[in-house]
Amino acid sequence: MKTLLLIGIGAGDPEHITVQGINALNRANVLFVLDKGQATEDLVRMRLQICQRYIREPGYRVVQVNDPQRDSSTACYTDGVEDWHQQRAEVFTHLIEDQLADGECGAFLLWGDPGLYDSTLRILDRVRAGGCSDFEHEVIPGISSVQALVARHRIALNTIGQPIRITTGRKLVAEDLDNVVVMLDAHCAFEAFVDENVDIYWGAYIGTADEILIAGKLSEVCEQIKQARSTARASKGWIMDTYLLRRRTRLSE
Amino acid sequence: MKTLLLIGIGAGDPEHITVQGINALNRANVLFVLDKGQATEDLVRMRLQICQRYIREPGYRVVQVNDPQRDSSTACYTDGVEDWHQQRAEVFTHLIEDQLADGECGAFLLWGDPGLYDSTLRILDRVRAGGCSDFEHEVIPGISSVQALVARHRIALNTIGQPIRITTGRKLVAEDLDNVVVMLDAHCAFEAFVDENVDIYWGAYIGTADEILIAGKLSEVCEQIKQARSTARASKGWIMDTYLLRRRTRLSE
Ligand SMILES: C[S@@+](CC[C@H](N)C(=O)[O-])C[C@H]1O[C@@H](n2cnc3c(N)ncnc32)[C@H](O)[C@@H]1O
Ligand SMILES: C[S@@+](CC[C@H](N)C(=O)[O-])C[C@H]1O[C@@H](n2cnc3c(N)ncnc32)[C@H](O)[C@@H]1O
Repeated sequence: MKTLLLIGIGAGDPEHITVQGINALNRANVLFVLDKGQATEDLVRMRLQICQRYIREPGYRVVQVNDPQRDSSTACYTDGVEDWHQQRAEVFTHLIEDQLADGECGAFLLWGDPGLYDSTLRILDRVRAGGCSDFEHEVIPGISSVQALVARHRIALNTIGQPIRITTGRKLVAEDLDNVVVMLDAHCAFEAFVDENVDIYWGAYIGTADEILIAGKLSEVCEQIKQARSTARASKGWIMDTYLLRRRTRLSE
Repeated sequence: MKTLLLIGIGAGDPEHITVQGINALNRANVLFVLDKGQATEDLVRMRLQICQRYIREPGYRVVQVNDPQRDSSTACYTDGVEDWHQQRAEVFTHLIEDQLADGECGAFLLWGDPGLYDSTLRILDRVRAGGCSDFEHEVIPGISSVQALVARHRIALNTIGQPIRITTGRKLVAEDLDNVVVMLDAHCAFEAFVDENVDIYWGAYIGTADEILIAGKLSEVCEQIKQARSTARASKGWIMDTYLLRRRTRLSE
């Protein structure tokens, strides 16, 4: 039997790691670091720094892998994701079969929380379904970018007793505006709602030295956010941002 | 100036604490531990154990406070919550004024993540509005019970590319059943949906020695969960449980 650990490492701050996460890192013989091309070179470096900082004994192996990219030219979103997941399953199968000896433990360092818009768990289901099944796996939760966002803005995720919604830029709709967190938004989806009476709490590179936080009435800070976003993106070559939109109520005004 | 740290300590496992959380604990001169009566004696004990385990220097003070309870007899839910928040604001004001000297740092050890169904941030807004404002505060995110639940069941919180909903037992409705996490449910709200084609991933006391996990088709495990829940509740005197409901799709079957 082999063991795979899916370790949530937090969303940017190396001190987001939990004691459970550190212990898991120290159990691993092999650390798998997935490389998604130039845009995420920085993210790979941050993962390697986490290994260096928290792994107590030398002798672990780091395996850096070229993670297949999603072909965004595919007409149908779901088809594109399907193909991509299948390619990734093949990469993972090779890792498990060729890089891990029986009895060994391999760890994936996953950004934020492994349960939140991360496909690793689903890929492992495919790997098993494809016949590579001599492994067990454990999931170690990590601080997500959603939690980091609200902590830095010092707000609650929910309004009193109300449901919480987390969605993607692609899926954001007007009905969500009472209270919603938006992730994976490459196109400033908030801009469509600039005339609504909502506040925005926006953050980019949260938890890192490049962190940017902007909050205010959407109509008043919308341009400022767009500007900050495109400037930062141009200078670093990539951006990760998340935001919460919340409709103003009589009480909050 | 005084400093207040709102530290998320995770949802039951003392190893959920982050490095950032440990560093924050070690900055505090005073640890505030809120006691909500007999039912949560165990939770107070777990907080004290966290202090003992992670605080490196002796000499910190622990202030245990009787946290006012919500009067659930009030006819209107929102009124009940209002009164209760006001009472808590008064308690917090006394803590800040009488238990913290100028320049000192006080910490609240908050269950799970401070942003998720926790009123401490809102109470501090009231404290400030009431005129007690010579303090700054920071929020340190923590692993929430939602993350602990999905990690233990080794599932993702979201289905591919879809929005996430987190709600309370009181607010759960049929439209949520595609994919929803339910918290704060004292009455097995899932039972109303036993005839739907959904899976349930249920967990109680997650992360502790008493953890119980049950998963399966709701119609098949509903009674088992109800039984396990009432047995555990009777023997320990309290229960904390959370669950995810997810409609079966052609793909998942
Ligand atoms: C593929 S998802 C992975 C989310 C991750 N599993 C988590 O728990 O945060 C990537 C998205 O997370 C958000 N994100 C991750 N890290 C972030 C950070 N440090 N600052 C702002 N947003 C971040 C962005 O919305 C980004 O598009
Ligand atoms: C007032 S809310 C606080 C939630 C907390 N801030 C968090 O992030 O998990 C309390 C609810 O959290 C859930 N909960 C907290 N800890 C739990 C645990 N260890 N196992 C199962 N559910 C838990 C239960 O649904 C409970 O009713």
